[in-house]
Amino acid sequence: MAKKSQAKGSVRDALRVPAGAKPGIPLEPDSIPIGPDSKAAAAKDLAATGERLAELQEALYAEGVAGGGHRAVLLVLQGMDTSGKGGTIKHVCGQVNPQGLHIASFKKPTKAELRHHFLWRIRRQLPGPGLIGVFDRSHYEDVLVVRVNELVPKSVWSGRYAEINEFEAEAAASGITLIKCFLHIAPDTQKERLIARLKNPAKHWKYNPADLDARARWSDYTKAYADALTRCSTSDAPWYVVPSDRKWYRNWAIGRLLLETLEDLKPQVPPGEFEVDTELARLVEADPLG
Amino acid sequence: MAKKSQAKGSVRDALRVPAGAKPGIPLEPDSIPIGPDSKAAAAKDLAATGERLAELQEALYAEGVAGGGHRAVLLVLQGMDTSGKGGTIKHVCGQVNPQGLHIASFKKPTKAELRHHFLWRIRRQLPGPGLIGVFDRSHYEDVLVVRVNELVPKSVWSGRYAEINEFEAEAAASGITLIKCFLHIAPDTQKERLIARLKNPAKHWKYNPADLDARARWSDYTKAYADALTRCSTSDAPWYVVPSDRKWYRNWAIGRLLLETLEDLKPQVPPGEFEVDTELARLVEADPLG
Repeated sequence: MAKKSQAKGSVRDALRVPAGAKPGIPLEPDSIPIGPDSKAAAAKDLAATGERLAELQEALYAEGVAGGGHRAVLLVLQGMDTSGKGGTIKHVCGQVNPQGLHIASFKKPTKAELRHHFLWRIRRQLPGPGLIGVFDRSHYEDVLVVRVNELVPKSVWSGRYAEINEFEAEAAASGITLIKCFLHIAPDTQKERLIARLKNPAKHWKYNPADLDARARWSDYTKAYADALTRCSTSDAPWYVVPSDRKWYRNWAIGRLLLETLEDLKPQVPPGEFEVDTELARLVEADPLG
Repeated sequence: MAKKSQAKGSVRDALRVPAGAKPGIPLEPDSIPIGPDSKAAAAKDLAATGERLAELQEALYAEGVAGGGHRAVLLVLQGMDTSGKGGTIKHVCGQVNPQGLHIASFKKPTKAELRHHFLWRIRRQLPGPGLIGVFDRSHYEDVLVVRVNELVPKSVWSGRYAEINEFEAEAAASGITLIKCFLHIAPDTQKERLIARLKNPAKHWKYNPADLDARARWSDYTKAYADALTRCSTSDAPWYVVPSDRKWYRNWAIGRLLLETLEDLKPQVPPGEFEVDTELARLVEADPLG
């Protein structure tokens, strides 16, 4: 076993949006509600977390793929441009065996997708048994960009919070543990990161002039996020606010959310359906190769 | 840029099965045809390879996802039980951003899959633009286990080599660079690894008593592999024999095969379709937030 990672108290408790909270975003983008307060300490702890995550993920995979188990985990990543959804996948999810990950990116829906219910393309990407699903954006865009840009009437998007809660309760009932993370950054942080992106040609592919249109609607997005976080933080599928102005804190916190969740699940490597001694005898005394 | 990895000459040249080679497996499972001859040196070099791979993979991803490029890579992993297909995915592929990987495991076909042509389920898992696809087993099982166990008549499986070559030529023409690896182990190596697996309850989920049935047919599998390697090693889609008795050598060699391939492709991060100065001015002087 890897050595135990360091954190006092539960990161889930510290970052969770309580069910029934009043609208708002309960934590600041540069806050450190729990855990390490230096980059070096966070990096060291993240590495230890990664080792334990890799062990637990292998057990979850074994349970689901070989053992007929039905449990899975789904990490939902939401946040404004540059908040670090991609960086989280690379640095946090990159610590486990990629074979156990199911990563789905939800971009602007295609025409074909738009002909379906908004949850249609989401359901198709739910992680199968034993997997850790990762959503880079998600069904929440249907109450975020869709609401801010009035892509559908209010009468439509306002009904979606209840639909989402029902959908997520079903997913939870089917064995999926949801971890929904809002990567919370300040407007100034985004500005710095966009400037850095523009000044580095190797990163231009990540920049789109339309990013500034979303930026211009920052306060509308903040309201939309606040509503999503409070209306859809349920006991089945809680939201966590991840202070993300510091990349190292964001990675540490999401690593710990995953770790606490997997530790709680206590995934069980299934026993073999054979007699060990019989098999060893077949292999050693009666080796089929002679 | 990460520092350059060390190897004399081309690993692809050293491990490739020449097109038109006479039937047989040209390298021994414990040979070191090229590269480091110690675990420590191999591990150090693999880490350097991993850094460069991660950079090149990001460029390939950018080219394909943001730049409208059509190129992709497909790593096909074949080998007897315990040869290390899963370990390769974990230790070699695990070095790049998991978002850029598309991993598919081909197990015993389902009844639904069996109603289709044998390449049907394979085509559906070809990597999209910008991705590195990884096949854990593949269409080659249709000329390996299917042939050894006579699951279809010889008249059927013997026609599949030509079908596979045609299919792979099409995939190559569509922009996919194939790297087909035969993870070559000796029967004694498998025996040791199966015993270790049986003696460790945490690994029992990886063991199936039927593994010994395949082991009993070792020489038939060797013939079937030899035929697949020689009949289907083409300039479009060469086979590589990866000596895999040593796990560190296997990981090193496959890392280098990927690296040489990506270096040859020279993936290009696409330029932004915007004027940097205009965007900086929009962001700094006319910040929409303020």
